[in-house]
Amino acid sequence: MSSAKVQQAKPVEYLHDINSLLADFFDHNLVRADAISPYYGNLWREMSRLSAAGGKRLRPRMTLMAYEAFGGTEPRQMLAIAAAQEVLHLGMLIHDDIIDRDYVRYGVDNVAGSYEKALYKRLVEHGDDRLHYSHSAALLAGDLLVSGAYRLMGECDIEPSKILQVQRLLSGSIFEVVGGELIDTEAAFREPGAIGAEVIARYKTASYTFVGPLLTGALLAEVSIEKQAILRRFAEHLGIAFQLRDDVIGVFGDEAKTGKTALGDLREGKRTFMIEQFEECADDDQKKAFFALFGDSALTEAQASELRAILVASGAKDRTEQAIAQYTEAALLALSALELIDPTPLEELVEISTKREK
Amino acid sequence: MSSAKVQQAKPVEYLHDINSLLADFFDHNLVRADAISPYYGNLWREMSRLSAAGGKRLRPRMTLMAYEAFGGTEPRQMLAIAAAQEVLHLGMLIHDDIIDRDYVRYGVDNVAGSYEKALYKRLVEHGDDRLHYSHSAALLAGDLLVSGAYRLMGECDIEPSKILQVQRLLSGSIFEVVGGELIDTEAAFREPGAIGAEVIARYKTASYTFVGPLLTGALLAEVSIEKQAILRRFAEHLGIAFQLRDDVIGVFGDEAKTGKTALGDLREGKRTFMIEQFEECADDDQKKAFFALFGDSALTEAQASELRAILVASGAKDRTEQAIAQYTEAALLALSALELIDPTPLEELVEISTKREK
Repeated sequence: MSSAKVQQAKPVEYLHDINSLLADFFDHNLVRADAISPYYGNLWREMSRLSAAGGKRLRPRMTLMAYEAFGGTEPRQMLAIAAAQEVLHLGMLIHDDIIDRDYVRYGVDNVAGSYEKALYKRLVEHGDDRLHYSHSAALLAGDLLVSGAYRLMGECDIEPSKILQVQRLLSGSIFEVVGGELIDTEAAFREPGAIGAEVIARYKTASYTFVGPLLTGALLAEVSIEKQAILRRFAEHLGIAFQLRDDVIGVFGDEAKTGKTALGDLREGKRTFMIEQFEECADDDQKKAFFALFGDSALTEAQASELRAILVASGAKDRTEQAIAQYTEAALLALSALELIDPTPLEELVEISTKREK
Repeated sequence: MSSAKVQQAKPVEYLHDINSLLADFFDHNLVRADAISPYYGNLWREMSRLSAAGGKRLRPRMTLMAYEAFGGTEPRQMLAIAAAQEVLHLGMLIHDDIIDRDYVRYGVDNVAGSYEKALYKRLVEHGDDRLHYSHSAALLAGDLLVSGAYRLMGECDIEPSKILQVQRLLSGSIFEVVGGELIDTEAAFREPGAIGAEVIARYKTASYTFVGPLLTGALLAEVSIEKQAILRRFAEHLGIAFQLRDDVIGVFGDEAKTGKTALGDLREGKRTFMIEQFEECADDDQKKAFFALFGDSALTEAQASELRAILVASGAKDRTEQAIAQYTEAALLALSALELIDPTPLEELVEISTKREK
């Protein structure tokens, strides 16, 4: 594929198409649901609202990016399959929020949050029950979106056998992300070290945020099995680097850039890769000082600064940066082995995934 | 298809094949999950255990029954698609139990129950948190099974375009059953009459217990669109009759036969079709006496007998029996319009679905 072609068809250009396909998906289902009951329509309205509040459509764009990088020439025909990645993502976010008991997403109420605060407000008097039913509505919403991702793929106007192949990738992504979600949840109450942060990063993040979307695009472009394997390595390494960067930002991030507090992970006592490194490289005094405050839900900004200083002094932050650099290098090595005519879009993806500040 | 052929290939004969395919499905995924983490393996072990505790495989058998009734000659080739109905069913049951806060299914602990009582027992001290995490594990299990149903279908060794068609039916079933589940849940706290019991029966029960499995079998046997439409009517009517019968059994059932108390629905104050009829046909005194006790969680056997007597005296039970008879008749009418060479298996299905005592 010529470089001019890539320029002409930058995945960000598809943002409008992806959003419009997603809007159609929700509208269509909303009409069907309303025909059953307006109360069922409500659930689709909530999902539609939440989808519209989200924004970057990173996963669908990665699918189209990989498709074009490997010479695919009909990106618009693949939009439904690309958008299905986002539908799955929204479903997983909704279920993830139930597990984390979070009620805000994309800066707005999520499905459970909206049912709790509005739709069920006057209907269910008892607060615990109202919360339970709000979680239940969100649970059902997620089911619809997991199923909806398959459905959307099934509606793509390409060879049926190809659709089944990308559905197999979808199924693999779900298998891995659910496993990652489970062990991440359990890591919060199992003994430290029982579940490694790299394993969680690999399955909870790399799998369905990078591996699934990128391999889907490559598969649609009829890439060889060998190159698929290399692309998988690229995506895994990149996904882990992305997650480790996320962990660093979660503690050291500039609130003005991230738009969220850098106290969250410290107050929660989240056992990220960086904390694992700290356990390995810190001396006893550092550990004593650190763990006296780490996980304290009332942690002050001054105390947080203290914790950050200890992480730096112990070498844990450096070790994490080194790991990010290593995973990034491994990703770039895989990328060069792919011998793409124009690797620029994927190189840019590496750049923004690993060097971002938010 | 000759009658002898039908005799030779009775769907109940496939019970072993269905169970063995399901066991393979769970074993295969269990191995994959264990490779990620033994804690993830645990979740698959729980699902596998629960699946093995279930039993009649009604839905897969209905798929094969319809397939053969319409002349399909390779039932064993369709096993994965038939078994996928059961995988979806198990996923829906697990999610339904979260919503209903039930912890026992098939007479054994369900996924949430087992995590709560055993796996997370020593790990999470606080009871509310333990329950939440147990629900979370069950939530993830259901996601895997919804996705797993599509995956299983995708692995069937038939024309890919046909697989996409049956997946479309699967997706339609999920769309409808989730809507039915939502409105059934909301019916418990919305004003009486806001959501009709027949609508719930149509979407929560008829849809994925009858329509989906039967149409799937018919589609695999390449039935015409016209006959598919008739079969859909058959399945809807039968499914509603089945649900109304269930409601009657829930109140008037013989505990020795059903193996469960006939006090449950009365204590819960479940607003079934029969209760809707009661509201229409009872006089004021009957209503006053009935609603003074209905929904009382401490209802005694003597009081339950009183409630049953009022339901009979008011005519509500008769009206329900009449509705069952009408739906059954409509189903049989549709069945005869299908002009099957051997309608016996489907006639038997009508018989056991509408005249059962448990």
